[in-house]
Amino acid sequence: MKEYLENINKAFESRARLGIMSVLMVEDSVDFSTLKDTLQLTDGNLASHLRALEEAAYLRVEKQFIGRKPNTTYHATDAGREAFKNHLNALEQLILNNRPTG
Amino acid sequence: MKEYLENINKAFESRARLGIMSVLMVEDSVDFSTLKDTLQLTDGNLASHLRALEEAAYLRVEKQFIGRKPNTTYHATDAGREAFKNHLNALEQLILNNRPTG
Repeated sequence: MKEYLENINKAFESRARLGIMSVLMVEDSVDFSTLKDTLQLTDGNLASHLRALEEAAYLRVEKQFIGRKPNTTYHATDAGREAFKNHLNALEQLILNNRPTG
Repeated sequence: MKEYLENINKAFESRARLGIMSVLMVEDSVDFSTLKDTLQLTDGNLASHLRALEEAAYLRVEKQFIGRKPNTTYHATDAGREAFKNHLNALEQLILNNRPTG
């Protein structure tokens, strides 16, 4: 297999996960409803992708209270940032390999 | 949702399908075993991704005989080429949006 294809990371394959990681690369901390609005996903769908990324240790979940209201925020881990960058580099190689030369 | 995320095409999400389309963009005609060797997929896995891409009308299957031996080849359709280019453009936007500026 071409090396760049090997570096395409299954954890980031879906559009939802690409979107989640894109947001978390820019924002230090994002809450559930912001992610939901930004990516236009259902609660269940977003929750399941967040869980998968958390299980891969690519994001970290923080639960706290603002007053009496529970607030859950999501943060990219260093491993997540690194892995996502590698994934984007692999996609870039894929694009370059599919572009007519000259 | 950011526009480039909307243009990410579910039909091409998996690494296997990115690989299949990459090969078909370059080669006019590829047979099953060449795809299998190039992408290092199992028969079942490759067959199921090829079927999905055929159902989306992104590739065309041609069955013929070479002497007495059946030979099946795969070809990207015009719609497939167009859709894959749009997908790669969306990925490129994603990459550009995740790159530090300046």
